Amino acid sequence: MRLSQLFTKTSKTVPADEQAINAKLLIQAGFIHKEMAGVYAYLPLGLKVLDNIKQIVREEMNAIGGQEVMMTVLQPRELFEKTDRWDDKKVDNWFKTKLDNGSELGLGFTHEEPIVNTLSSYVNSYKDLPIFVYQIQTKFRNEKRAKSGLLRGREFIMKDMYSLARTPAEHDELYERAATAYTKVYDRLGIGDITYRTAADGGVFTKKFSDEFQTLSPLGEDTIYLDEAKRLAINNEIYTDANLVKLGLDKSKLVEKRAVEVGNIFPLETKYTNALGVYYTDKNGQQQPIIMGCYGIGISRLMGVLAEHFADNKGLVWPKNIAPAQIYLIGIGDVVKDTTGLYEKLQQQGIEVLYDDRDVHPGQKFADSELMGIPYRVTLSEKTLSQNKVELTNRSSGEIKLLTADELVARL
Amino acid sequence: MRLSQLFTKTSKTVPADEQAINAKLLIQAGFIHKEMAGVYAYLPLGLKVLDNIKQIVREEMNAIGGQEVMMTVLQPRELFEKTDRWDDKKVDNWFKTKLDNGSELGLGFTHEEPIVNTLSSYVNSYKDLPIFVYQIQTKFRNEKRAKSGLLRGREFIMKDMYSLARTPAEHDELYERAATAYTKVYDRLGIGDITYRTAADGGVFTKKFSDEFQTLSPLGEDTIYLDEAKRLAINNEIYTDANLVKLGLDKSKLVEKRAVEVGNIFPLETKYTNALGVYYTDKNGQQQPIIMGCYGIGISRLMGVLAEHFADNKGLVWPKNIAPAQIYLIGIGDVVKDTTGLYEKLQQQGIEVLYDDRDVHPGQKFADSELMGIPYRVTLSEKTLSQNKVELTNRSSGEIKLLTADELVARL
Repeated sequence: MRLSQLFTKTSKTVPADEQAINAKLLIQAGFIHKEMAGVYAYLPLGLKVLDNIKQIVREEMNAIGGQEVMMTVLQPRELFEKTDRWDDKKVDNWFKTKLDNGSELGLGFTHEEPIVNTLSSYVNSYKDLPIFVYQIQTKFRNEKRAKSGLLRGREFIMKDMYSLARTPAEHDELYERAATAYTKVYDRLGIGDITYRTAADGGVFTKKFSDEFQTLSPLGEDTIYLDEAKRLAINNEIYTDANLVKLGLDKSKLVEKRAVEVGNIFPLETKYTNALGVYYTDKNGQQQPIIMGCYGIGISRLMGVLAEHFADNKGLVWPKNIAPAQIYLIGIGDVVKDTTGLYEKLQQQGIEVLYDDRDVHPGQKFADSELMGIPYRVTLSEKTLSQNKVELTNRSSGEIKLLTADELVARL
Repeated sequence: MRLSQLFTKTSKTVPADEQAINAKLLIQAGFIHKEMAGVYAYLPLGLKVLDNIKQIVREEMNAIGGQEVMMTVLQPRELFEKTDRWDDKKVDNWFKTKLDNGSELGLGFTHEEPIVNTLSSYVNSYKDLPIFVYQIQTKFRNEKRAKSGLLRGREFIMKDMYSLARTPAEHDELYERAATAYTKVYDRLGIGDITYRTAADGGVFTKKFSDEFQTLSPLGEDTIYLDEAKRLAINNEIYTDANLVKLGLDKSKLVEKRAVEVGNIFPLETKYTNALGVYYTDKNGQQQPIIMGCYGIGISRLMGVLAEHFADNKGLVWPKNIAPAQIYLIGIGDVVKDTTGLYEKLQQQGIEVLYDDRDVHPGQKFADSELMGIPYRVTLSEKTLSQNKVELTNRSSGEIKLLTADELVARL
């Protein structure tokens, strides 16, 4: 895309009403727009990043047999009363609204109830299970405070998956399959090496732990105790000698770290299926309970985490596979024809390029390429062209190479 | 995908609580799930259809320079008060909710205000215009009645685009560019020949007409008067002699038709930009008003229209480019190995196949392939294999061909 056509602009002014680094940088770079605290619109470059993250998550969920659906935002009161999650004393972050006839509705903050209710139309026999079903959808939580930018939104994008299994062993197999898919997601996003499966509280209706995926970060809100050799951690909230024994962790080998949660998976036992009266009939014609798991990744939160984690003092630094473009193209001096030619050549190769064809000083172009965090900057000048070459600068490492156009294409 | 893995099932029972054919068929085929009147979840096959429609619309909006964004559902009261669209007496189909601190919010039913408000951060100079910006997003309207399935939802998916122009001539150029893109969308969806640009009421703040795109259908809610030669129509609502003169239509050449609206485009003049105080500075340093247009396509409504329009007495009939799969594959008798082999071969070619590997009677498989509306059914039996061939049945025409596997692949 030509930057002269892109409607967003970068800004040197740090937003005064934001505390979180991710929100400050993403707003300055023109990736998001703040509608109100915890509620952000995604502008063209920000939407591309969001979509790229979604697609990676989608591919890994599909790879383990996940079937994608899209549930609704509007939720009926009756459904959540069945599981005792309607009352504001039980769930304190509902947004609620009303139909024209006065019936109360909620805005979905999670979807266990509607998923189980929908599946009840299709699940009868043992032949209908197991099931992995997921969605990538906008969710709503009426947070009292929303100061963390994309890390904790009132309106946010989430991938939530649910598993339905016939036996504890089958549930465990699905649960571990999902955990493995999660590690693949973080690997692909470039944070696999610093992201750890972390035992956390399982909630009131299971004796098991839940599992968080925690990315090491000085900015994180969580404290975890980490066994690097086992690549396992335990959340501070459940850090007791008894739990360490259960997890097979040795206190002397644990290191305290700050971390930010980038996913969580929960055993739900039979809480929701039983409450909604959904069972299956086994081979002997006996009615049996269905064991459920749920698996969340905050897509917009992850965008905030990645923005904040990789950023440096010049701005954003996107991993290649979620960047809104691979190349930021700049021509310095009287080289418009060559620069435009290279732009077209790269586009023909299917390489996504931001071509800075604006009539502004090269210094501003360099600064914007850094603020936006595009992985590679390609610069043409009379000097580079005199050698029949272009300059390739790596945003992350700062490494500079002189390459011919063909070498550049081959490299990408 | 193997049907034994798909969690949805077809149903012979017509939903008793639905009046609309589109909802009845889509529920029976397992494409959607009704959460409440006018609020539907999209199940795996339904989501594919929806995504395919979205992608066609997205490509055509991108082709005319549209920049995609994603605005928020939650909308602040203050913003809509500026344009006098907050009060329930002015807009009677708001869903409203509250922040924890008591501030009132609305659920976006349209996005002129937040779009203009967002663009105000980026638009100053004549160099920043024109702009085409669009989103494909979930919208909410608190309809009193919602009996038309996907045709009129309380929660629905819409593509809404907005143009900002410097002059009336520039606005007109953008408006016609969008109209042309709309006709391309309907052509690609297979309803181009029966979809007509139709003059309709422009609203209170313009002397111009708005334009609807109306698809001929006995099921339509609208009455239009059509000049087939000019491929232009006029909506019954504004069918006056004076308007016919303005439109250059000859009453004697018009035919009355029933039709369903599949898109509409509106000149907004300067109503929203002026109300929100957004102007541009021209070459002479003078502040000037910005002329706006808006362009809507109901994506989920279009899915309902297409479902209903192409359906026959056996079920759904999807156009090829939005069908959830191209082929419904059935093996009759002891031909599992050959059928599975063909399934894998077709998948390797990137052809989407629903492989009915369920242990059910062939009659049910045939009926399901018809109810689901998959464009081609491929049947293998000992008889076809004895000729080294497979049977290809066209869902729409009923035409049957015997082909070799290679001929089948070449044909698709």
